[in-house]
Amino acid sequence: MQLNKSDLEKMEQRYRATFINSLAGFKTALLIGSKSADGFSNLAIFNSLIHIGANPPMYGFLCRPDTVKRDTLSNILETNYYTFNYVKSEDYKKAHQTSAKYEREVSEFEKTGFTETYINNFFAPFAQEAVVKIGLRFEEKIDIKINGTILIIGSIENIEMNADIISEDGFVALEKENVLACTGLDAYYHSDFIGRLSYAKPERWPEKID
Amino acid sequence: MQLNKSDLEKMEQRYRATFINSLAGFKTALLIGSKSADGFSNLAIFNSLIHIGANPPMYGFLCRPDTVKRDTLSNILETNYYTFNYVKSEDYKKAHQTSAKYEREVSEFEKTGFTETYINNFFAPFAQEAVVKIGLRFEEKIDIKINGTILIIGSIENIEMNADIISEDGFVALEKENVLACTGLDAYYHSDFIGRLSYAKPERWPEKID
Repeated sequence: MQLNKSDLEKMEQRYRATFINSLAGFKTALLIGSKSADGFSNLAIFNSLIHIGANPPMYGFLCRPDTVKRDTLSNILETNYYTFNYVKSEDYKKAHQTSAKYEREVSEFEKTGFTETYINNFFAPFAQEAVVKIGLRFEEKIDIKINGTILIIGSIENIEMNADIISEDGFVALEKENVLACTGLDAYYHSDFIGRLSYAKPERWPEKID
Repeated sequence: MQLNKSDLEKMEQRYRATFINSLAGFKTALLIGSKSADGFSNLAIFNSLIHIGANPPMYGFLCRPDTVKRDTLSNILETNYYTFNYVKSEDYKKAHQTSAKYEREVSEFEKTGFTETYINNFFAPFAQEAVVKIGLRFEEKIDIKINGTILIIGSIENIEMNADIISEDGFVALEKENVLACTGLDAYYHSDFIGRLSYAKPERWPEKID
């Protein structure tokens, strides 16, 4: 099937949102933990972790200011600290439930059954059940003028995870913790490892290294 | 295991790159097709498709100007057109091989065995074997000053895919085409569908809808 620009324009708006969101492919389901200056904690699912750089270690995510997830954005801009949490596949219903429109004063931790936890006095809350917990400090907000979305970049302050899933060369085997993946706004996946390949060179084909 | 900022700083540089890249989570393996103004075609693997917006439909990707993938960037800035291609899991070695440092005049299509193909006079080449083919027009280049990476945003001009994987509500079931996923720079995955969930509301838990 071929679709052109005018076919996309003619799509009913909700259909197009579902189509373009899911067509964007697989991502890790990302639960962002944050807390307002007046102490209300928040946990919300995103699917847009962006690897910005390794030196220094920085991750980004995209935010639409008009969505239910604006609490996350305002907490980050207010307090500078937030967390990324990866959960196990079996927690997909709880993870999805964090997307419900709870009032600002209501904690998604309480409502969805993730346990609010703190590590080494880091300001923002983590989900205790998360198998990978990453604490970030806000670094930069980039306004994407073309459609009003916002790219939030943070530097990694701390990480808690199982050391057993890190290979000798630094590779993190997320599949060993059964980390939840997703597409679009409501579809969840489990990822099966195929293999790691050697560094590709023009003169020879890659080999399986793991 | 807990790691703090100073632990990350102390990591050997290549170890840290592997660690931070793979920790960033699952992504669809994305082959970007492009062609220089003087006619040299290029195909290169990226893992950073970013859903920018659905109305109008726009996707982004991140580019590090100092990598082997600079041909892709210069082709896009020169010609304005490029393609996103998703391939099947079984093509993971060919997909990885597109990351080898071929000379600018060498076509990764030829060297890796993907078939260069064109759709409706669209300027940039697609990989014929790709199960999802998306043609994009360059819209905006955003310099991320904090570390010199570049966000390239494009609007979707055309799409070719199997209509059978699109649900009634617009959802694209990429797993039905066995679309290749990856983490980091060299690890490949197959994704198993768990389920889609109903729109989350505070007053009730999500149900499986598919």
